[in-house]
Amino acid sequence: MHTINEYREEFIAYLDSKKITKEPRNLYEPITYILGLGGKRLRPVLVLMTAEIFKGDFKNALDAALAIEVFHNFSLVHDDIMDDAPVRRGETTVHEKWDINTGILSGDAMLILAYQLFENYEPNVFRDLAKLFSKTALEVCEGQQYDVDFETRDDVMLPEYLKMIEYKTAVLVAAALKMGAIVAGASDTAQEKMYSFGLNLGIAFQLQDDYLDVFGDPETFGKQVGGDIIENKKTYLYLKALNSGSEMMTKELEHLYSIQPKESEAKISAVRSIFEKTEADKATKVAIADYTARAFDVLEEMEIEPENKELLKQFGENLMNRTV
Amino acid sequence: MHTINEYREEFIAYLDSKKITKEPRNLYEPITYILGLGGKRLRPVLVLMTAEIFKGDFKNALDAALAIEVFHNFSLVHDDIMDDAPVRRGETTVHEKWDINTGILSGDAMLILAYQLFENYEPNVFRDLAKLFSKTALEVCEGQQYDVDFETRDDVMLPEYLKMIEYKTAVLVAAALKMGAIVAGASDTAQEKMYSFGLNLGIAFQLQDDYLDVFGDPETFGKQVGGDIIENKKTYLYLKALNSGSEMMTKELEHLYSIQPKESEAKISAVRSIFEKTEADKATKVAIADYTARAFDVLEEMEIEPENKELLKQFGENLMNRTV
Repeated sequence: MHTINEYREEFIAYLDSKKITKEPRNLYEPITYILGLGGKRLRPVLVLMTAEIFKGDFKNALDAALAIEVFHNFSLVHDDIMDDAPVRRGETTVHEKWDINTGILSGDAMLILAYQLFENYEPNVFRDLAKLFSKTALEVCEGQQYDVDFETRDDVMLPEYLKMIEYKTAVLVAAALKMGAIVAGASDTAQEKMYSFGLNLGIAFQLQDDYLDVFGDPETFGKQVGGDIIENKKTYLYLKALNSGSEMMTKELEHLYSIQPKESEAKISAVRSIFEKTEADKATKVAIADYTARAFDVLEEMEIEPENKELLKQFGENLMNRTV
Repeated sequence: MHTINEYREEFIAYLDSKKITKEPRNLYEPITYILGLGGKRLRPVLVLMTAEIFKGDFKNALDAALAIEVFHNFSLVHDDIMDDAPVRRGETTVHEKWDINTGILSGDAMLILAYQLFENYEPNVFRDLAKLFSKTALEVCEGQQYDVDFETRDDVMLPEYLKMIEYKTAVLVAAALKMGAIVAGASDTAQEKMYSFGLNLGIAFQLQDDYLDVFGDPETFGKQVGGDIIENKKTYLYLKALNSGSEMMTKELEHLYSIQPKESEAKISAVRSIFEKTEADKATKVAIADYTARAFDVLEEMEIEPENKELLKQFGENLMNRTV
C-alpha cells in the first residue's frame, strides 16, 4: 500500500500527462485551467486507495480517478456560474476569467470527457463504472437543484436537508470508493459496503462543514467563518434551531435570516448565540458523531486486511479533523 | 419496413411513455417541456429506420433513438442560453420560461439521462453506443465553440467552416444512422458506410440551410429569410463570395457585414446581389449537389436490400427538398 501523499502525487502526475492542448483552444484551455487549480484531490485518492485495498493495481484505477476529478470540477464550473461566484481556490472562476458561455460549454465538454475516461476498461467494467457514474452525476444535479429550491422555501424539513447534502456532496465520495472496488474486481457486497462507508462519511463531513462555518477557527477553516449566516443559508444548525427553540427565539432567528446588513458581525454573533441557546450546536455535533460512527461500523464489517481497515479509518479521522 | 410517419409515431409514443415526473420538479419539468415542443424527430427516426434496415427489431433501437433526441435537445437548451434566443419551435426557450440557471442544470441532467438510455443494452453494445455518443457529443461541443469563435474572427477559411458545420450538425445525423446499425449488430464496414452517408448528407443539409436562409421561399423556409445576413453570420455563401469577388465587391461585402441597420431590407438585398454577382450562390448549389452525390455514392456501395437503398435515398431526397 501507498500513503495518501503518494497516491496524490501519482494522480497529479497522471493528470499532467493527460493535459488536453487540442483545438479549439477556447474550449479546452478553461478545462486545463480549472483542473490545474489544485485542491486536495481527495476523491481521486480514494479511488486509487480502494483499488489497492482490494488487491488491484492502483495504476489501473487512474482513469476512473481522473473521471471523478473531472466530473467534480465540471460541477464546480457550472455551480460557480449559478452562484455568480468570482473566486474558486483563490483564483478567478472560469466564467469570470472567460465568460458565462465558455463556462457552460467547457463544462459540458468536461462531463463528456469524464465518460470517455472509462473507455479503456473492458466492457463489463466499463458498463459498471458508467452506470454508477450516471446515477451519481444525476443525483449531484438533483442535490444542486434542491439547494437552489431551498433558498426560496421557508418550510424546509431536516430530512430534506439531509437528502440534499447526501446528493450534492456525499454520493460522489461514495462513488469514488465504489469505483476503486469495481476496477479491482471486488464482490458486489464489498462494493456496497465501500459505498455505504463513503456515503456516511460524506454526510458527516458536510455536517461538520456547516458546524465549522459558524464555530470554526478562522485560522484553519479556509473559508470565511460566518459565510453561511451572511448568505442566510438554511443549514443543519439553522433548521435544528428552528425546531428546538422557543417561539420567541424562532421569530428572532427568522428575522435575522430575512436581513442582510452591511456589517455582518452583530448578525453573526446573534445567530451564533441562538444556535447555542437552542443547543443546535450540540445536536449538530451529535449528528456528526452519529454519521461518522455509522461509517466506521460499516468499515468494521468489511472483509479486508486489518491494516487496510486502519488506513481507511485514519483517512476518515483525518478528514473529520481536516488534516488530510 | 415501416414508413417515416410510422417510425415517428412509434418514437413519440415511446417518448411519452418515458416522461419523467419525479422530484425535484424544477429540474425535470424543463426537460419534459423541451422534449414536448415537437420538431420533426428526424434523428430518432433515422436510428429506428437503420436498425430495421439491418434486420434488427426497431423496438430495440428506441432507447438509442431517445438518447439521440435527448442529446439534441440538451444542445438546443444550452445553445439557446449562449445565443440569448427567446424562441424555440415557436415557444419560449427554457432559460426564458424559467431562468438561465435552470437551463444550465436541466441541460446537464439531460446529457446524463442520454447516457443512461444505453444501460439496457448488453455490455458490448452499451460500450459501442456510449463511445460513439461521447465522441459525437464532444465534436458537437467543438463545433459550437468554432461557431462562437468565428463570430469575432475575420480570417475564417472555407475548410474551417466546413469542419464547423460537420461537427455542429452533421456528426449527430451520422451517429444516429450508425447507432441503428450498432443496435442491429451490423458489421463494422456497414456501420462506417452508414456513418459516411449521414455525414455527407448532414453537411449537404446545412449548406442548403445557408442557401435557403438567403434565397429560400419565405412561405416554406420556416425561419426568417435573411436571418443570417442580419446577424452577419459567416456562412458558406459569405466566405465563397469573399473569395471569388473583385476587391471592390469584397470591400462592400465586408462593410455590409460590419453594420446592423434597424431596417434590414436594403442590407439583405445588397448582400444577396453580391452573392449572385460573385456566383457564390451557384458555388453553394454545386457544393450541396456534391455532398449529396457523395452520400448517394456511399449508399450505392452498401450491401443492403435494394428497396432499403431506395428508402434511404427517398429520405435523403425528401430531406433536401424539405418535405420530410
